Formats: sequence, structure tokens, C-alpha cells
Amino acid sequence: MELLFLGTGSGVPSKQRNVSSLALKLLDERNSIWLFDCGEATQHQILQTTLKPRKIEKIFISHMHGDHIFGLPGLLSSRGFQGGIERLTIYGPVGIKGFVLSSLKYAGTYLSYPINFVEFKEPGIIFEDSQFKVSVGKLKHGIPSYGFRVEEADHEGTLDAQKLKELNIPPGPLYGRIKNKEIVELEDGRIINGEDFVGPPQKGRIVTILGDTVEHPNSIQLAKDADVLVHESTFSSNEAELARQYNHSTTIQAAQIAKKAGVKKLLLTHFSSRYMHKDMKQLKKEAKAIFPNTCLMKDLQEISINREGCEE
Amino acid sequence: MELLFLGTGSGVPSKQRNVSSLALKLLDERNSIWLFDCGEATQHQILQTTLKPRKIEKIFISHMHGDHIFGLPGLLSSRGFQGGIERLTIYGPVGIKGFVLSSLKYAGTYLSYPINFVEFKEPGIIFEDSQFKVSVGKLKHGIPSYGFRVEEADHEGTLDAQKLKELNIPPGPLYGRIKNKEIVELEDGRIINGEDFVGPPQKGRIVTILGDTVEHPNSIQLAKDADVLVHESTFSSNEAELARQYNHSTTIQAAQIAKKAGVKKLLLTHFSSRYMHKDMKQLKKEAKAIFPNTCLMKDLQEISINREGCEE
Repeated sequence: MELLFLGTGSGVPSKQRNVSSLALKLLDERNSIWLFDCGEATQHQILQTTLKPRKIEKIFISHMHGDHIFGLPGLLSSRGFQGGIERLTIYGPVGIKGFVLSSLKYAGTYLSYPINFVEFKEPGIIFEDSQFKVSVGKLKHGIPSYGFRVEEADHEGTLDAQKLKELNIPPGPLYGRIKNKEIVELEDGRIINGEDFVGPPQKGRIVTILGDTVEHPNSIQLAKDADVLVHESTFSSNEAELARQYNHSTTIQAAQIAKKAGVKKLLLTHFSSRYMHKDMKQLKKEAKAIFPNTCLMKDLQEISINREGCEE
Repeated sequence: MELLFLGTGSGVPSKQRNVSSLALKLLDERNSIWLFDCGEATQHQILQTTLKPRKIEKIFISHMHGDHIFGLPGLLSSRGFQGGIERLTIYGPVGIKGFVLSSLKYAGTYLSYPINFVEFKEPGIIFEDSQFKVSVGKLKHGIPSYGFRVEEADHEGTLDAQKLKELNIPPGPLYGRIKNKEIVELEDGRIINGEDFVGPPQKGRIVTILGDTVEHPNSIQLAKDADVLVHESTFSSNEAELARQYNHSTTIQAAQIAKKAGVKKLLLTHFSSRYMHKDMKQLKKEAKAIFPNTCLMKDLQEISINREGCEE
């Protein structure tokens, strides 16, 4: 499970940062990619990576501002051109379906694959299967803006097949019973306890990805105990008034959310184009003073989310 | 007057070529820029140039396919962010107004400047002032697709002030009458003929920019005696069947149009992403065999259109 940042700027693209998009790579987990937001030229950013558009299974849209959605019509069209035939589901605020369908209709585009739309308005669970649960919560940003909490199911402990082989217990249907932690009598009369051959359960990972927002208590709830929190940080701490006025957050406000939520790692993104490369050191310092395990993300930077912690 | 190619690929962006957009730089003529088509990430390409979005006065859209229009909502939004307040006019096929307004509406975008829309369906003149006339003509491409003929007004001959000074005729209101080619009696009794002091008129330049199309007689009419013809060349000459099937042109077909129209220079663009850098030599050879003064354009390449001919 990795987070690959495709666009880390806010509002308008710059030479350094594209507008918002973030890929949650679930290649090991389900051979697919989930995209969070899709600003213009997200498909161009993808060209610079190993991501395959046909593997995009789900796209989650946090809010309807142009710098988060204007890349959708092009990406969806190109996914078809590039041989995508698998169904894709788009989750987003009310209006996302209308935007996508009307853009494709005006352009006379017929896709080679079906799209499901899941529009939401109220907080709640928007997706759940045996592997993952995704909940949505409301933020505060002038227009309806949402955050996503992606929770992986806990993994059962793994069967220690090596240990079984060392005891001359050959693979077969018996392994299933041992994995279920049953007490089993072997053909040679030995009795073994499955508990002794199954490792401890692994806690599922939690990834919280928030849309544009001012500092808000819902963010804490969405990010509670998360392995990773992705939070916008449009402004430096000395621009708190601007942040409030434009419904955005500062470095410090984002770090405070991370601290209150007790997350393991904070990834900051959505930086105003006023900040040049040289300014990032100061922004980093501000956030780290409140929440030390903070990273300021760059375009095309990837973070591994391991159960033991995150790696840059 | 220069043509700056912002995107020279077809259908989907590649690492080498973005989707279609072309800037006609009229900075010397009217301190403005006219854009022809606006595929996704046109604003990103503009970031690599000296073009200022606020100077974009007119945008002409050849047809409604996504690779020619999906960059409009983002470019229009950013033009506002970047201080654009001047009115902008968008000329395009029926539907262009609906596409732009609905995209901006879904995104909750309010622009800081007014947009005029001029939708066309039939051939004719779509813009004319004392400097330029723009006519539109129908092409053939599966959906309505159009070509643009931009005609500069002829310039009157310039007054040879140097020659007048050498004859001790001082600057003053008299110069206006001489410029008008009147016969004038000077204070010292000399009689001079304005005709002798005014250079020959300069023919206005003609630039023809065509949208996606199969080889079509209307293209010849639109390009008649043009200084420059910009023509799509999606396929190599050995893919004439594919070109026909997808309503596109080959190198040779584009070159034949240029030859029949008697243009001075042919600029080819809109190359299929199947062609790599190494293939361009062959495509160039094919076109030049029919029309020697042909250039195959690259992204961000600029051509000056001088009255004496074009410079690369």
C-alpha cells in the first residue's frame, strides 16, 4: 500500500506543483489503484509514473472545485483509449455525475467501460468489502467538502507452514483446520493445537485523506488513530487570516489536527503557489514544531504505508 | 505574428506531445493572443512559454472532441486567478457555450471577466475588424469540424519621410496629404506628387488553421494562397485506410491540400502517438515529396510569419 502524490499544489498549476490528485496504490492488496481527486492534467502526471489508468478501480472526489475535478473527463476518455474495459466507480459530492456525464456528452465521448456513480451528501460508509471500508465525513470549505477514512480489515494471523513441515505434517486440507485454530488429531496419533501454528492477527491500516478545509473537529474524528493523515496546508502559519478567509488551513492547524487525532504520520499537501521551494523549510519547521512526524509532499513523491510505519 | 504550437499530438497526451492547442501571437499587431483549440493541460503548456493568459483575447475551437476542448475550463479559471479582467471571446461549434458554462457551474467557478460566445454551424465570416477577418469553413470528421482562415488587412504603403526631408520638406500636416497620394503645391512653389513618396502597399498575411478532417475540397478553399497552412497529419501515408476510418488525414493527403491551395508553407501537427521521434523522418519525407516547404511541428515550437515568408 503506497500513496503516490500526483499533484500537491492549490488552485492553479505551477511549474513545480500540479493541482490536486493522489493515488492510493493497492497493487499488492487488490491489483488496483484508487484515485483521490483528479485536477487537470492528472493523466499527464500519471504518464510520468508506472500507474496504469486501466487499473484505476475507484475515484473519490472530495469536493467540486475545478482544481480537484477538471482532469476527470480527459482521464476517463484516455482510460478507454488505453484499453480500459473494467468498471470504474466514482464517489463524489452531489453533482459529480452531472459534471462527468455532461462533459463526455458535449465531447461526443463514448467510453468502452461502465462507470458507477456514488454521490454522497451526508457522512457515512460509502464502500465496504472484506478488505476495506471507506467512510466519508463533512469538512468546512465554502462549498460542500469531504474527507475519506480508508480502513483496512484486520488480517488474521498467518499459518506457520514451515513449522508444520518441520514436524512432518504435510500440506493438505488439515492446514485449513489448523489455520482455524482447531485442536487436531493427526493420523499418527499426535494431537496439536492450531493456536500454536498461527501468528498474531495484524491490525488493518487506516489512511485518512481530507479535502480542502479549515481546521475542523470532524477532521479529528476522520483521522482518529490513522496510520497516515493527508491534510491540506495551503498557507503558512502567519497567514491564518487568509486561510480562514479562503476556507483553507495553515501548517500549524493541520499539525494540530494530526496531534489531536493521534495519527502516526502527517502528510501535508495543497500548498499555495506563493510558496517557492526555498519557503518549504519554514513551512516544515512550523508543522514539525507541533507534530514531529510530518512530511511536506512533492509531486510524484511516494510513501509506503507499512504496518510497521511509513517509509519515504 | 507567430504561431506557437502548444500541443501537437492526437487523441491522448503522450510524454512527447500534448493534445491540441495552438497560439497565434499577435503581440506586435494588437498586443494579444488568439488560441486555436484548447486540449487538456494547455494552461500547463503555457506555463513553459512567455504567453500571458490575460492576453488571450479570442479562443477558436475547431470541433468538440475532448482532446480539443477539455483544457478550456481550467484555462478560463486560471486566467481569472492570474488577474485577467479583459473580455474574452470564444468561437466554436454549437455546444461550446453549454460545455464551458456547465463545467464552470458544476465547479462553482465565477470568473472575474466576461466571456462572449460565438457559436457557428454554417460557413462564413465570424470576426472582422480593420485589422483581421476570420472565416470558418466546414471540414469532414464524423462530428462537425471546422477550419479557420485568418486574413490580415492589406497595409497601405509607408511614407518615405527620409526622401521628403532630403528635399527640405519639413514634417507637418502636409505629410498627411502626401501620404494620401495627393498632388501638392509647396510654399516655395514646387509641385510634388504624393505617389512618388509612398511605398507599395503590403499584402496582408493569410493563416489557415484546420481542425481534424479527412482530405476535403473545402480545405483547399480555406487555404487558398495562404502564407501558412496548419493541417492535421494523424497518420503516415501507408495508413490511409485507418485515416479514412477515423476521419483523419495522412501526411500525403495534407501535402496535396497544401499544393492544390498554393500555400507558401505547410505546418503539420496532430500526430498519432504511435509515431515516435524516430518515425518523424519518414513522415517528413512523405510530405516533402509532394510539398517541399513542409514542417512537422513539435510541442512548444514557434514559427514567425513574416511578409517575406516564414522562419523557424
